[in-house]
Amino acid sequence: MSHDGNPPPSAPRASGDAGELILREEPRPEDGPRIREIVESTKFFHPYEVEIAQELVEERLAEGIGSGYFFVFADRGDRTIGYSCYGPTPCTAWTYDIYWMAVDQQDRGGGLGRILLERTEQRIHEMGGRRIYIETSSSEKYLPTRAFYERTGYRVDAVLEDFYGPGDAKVIFVKVLPPL
Amino acid sequence: MSHDGNPPPSAPRASGDAGELILREEPRPEDGPRIREIVESTKFFHPYEVEIAQELVEERLAEGIGSGYFFVFADRGDRTIGYSCYGPTPCTAWTYDIYWMAVDQQDRGGGLGRILLERTEQRIHEMGGRRIYIETSSSEKYLPTRAFYERTGYRVDAVLEDFYGPGDAKVIFVKVLPPL
Repeated sequence: MSHDGNPPPSAPRASGDAGELILREEPRPEDGPRIREIVESTKFFHPYEVEIAQELVEERLAEGIGSGYFFVFADRGDRTIGYSCYGPTPCTAWTYDIYWMAVDQQDRGGGLGRILLERTEQRIHEMGGRRIYIETSSSEKYLPTRAFYERTGYRVDAVLEDFYGPGDAKVIFVKVLPPL
Repeated sequence: MSHDGNPPPSAPRASGDAGELILREEPRPEDGPRIREIVESTKFFHPYEVEIAQELVEERLAEGIGSGYFFVFADRGDRTIGYSCYGPTPCTAWTYDIYWMAVDQQDRGGGLGRILLERTEQRIHEMGGRRIYIETSSSEKYLPTRAFYERTGYRVDAVLEDFYGPGDAKVIFVKVLPPL
């Protein structure tokens, strides 16, 4: 991954697809509405889920890292095209949750999900995390999501039948990280 | 359960053990600090967990039921002696979590845990809940907690090994409720 690091303040900004991919971690006020657009663009989430995605950014902006929410944003040129949201799981010694991962519909298929996931895992590891949990649905719609996590080294730790609704289980994935 | 219902505003209040047990659901400003005392008295929780218990009451007081946190408080005379905190699980159709249940150390052993649990389950059922989840630790210390939930009709739905820390699993209990 050569396209990482926070942009130096004076970096020239390209626009459109030609821009360099930049990963940054400090949220900005404009990230809230943009995250909403990204999450909506995937057509994967209910309106109340979209609401929560935006709220987590706002909470982080209001409360800082005390909010418990951390982010990786992927910018290309002056456009944010994907992000992850993660954080330490309250009341645990070494466990982290990845709460959200989304890539704008028109930027999918370029491997950005994996780049975001790798940066997120790297940060969790640096913060002392040893177990990463990701929860998703067992429904047909989430088959690509589950396949993605299986390809990237996650295993199914538990399945809670009918959790989201009738016939819709919660699938809990875990990845165990080595000691630092 | 004859000792239920919110107290009428004019109800005379006994003090000490002689008072009638009253269950109420509307949080008051003084509940935050008192919940902290109750949770601390059990010697079951870390300081940051005690903090969270109090915060959930404050969040409910600030945001109302939009906070997603609901409560049952048990008062005897002018003393609150136990409580439960529960709410609908975000992004699910029919699932509720019971987040906290605690009884003051000096009021344990009188069946109050079961009374609080039954009222909580009744409310969840009335709100359309069909699945109740309770999470606890696999450690020795929580053996009485796990035994309590097994006695009251919960079954272990999943065990996430090493979730809280090395050798300390998360045990997820579930109770399935019938249709209303």
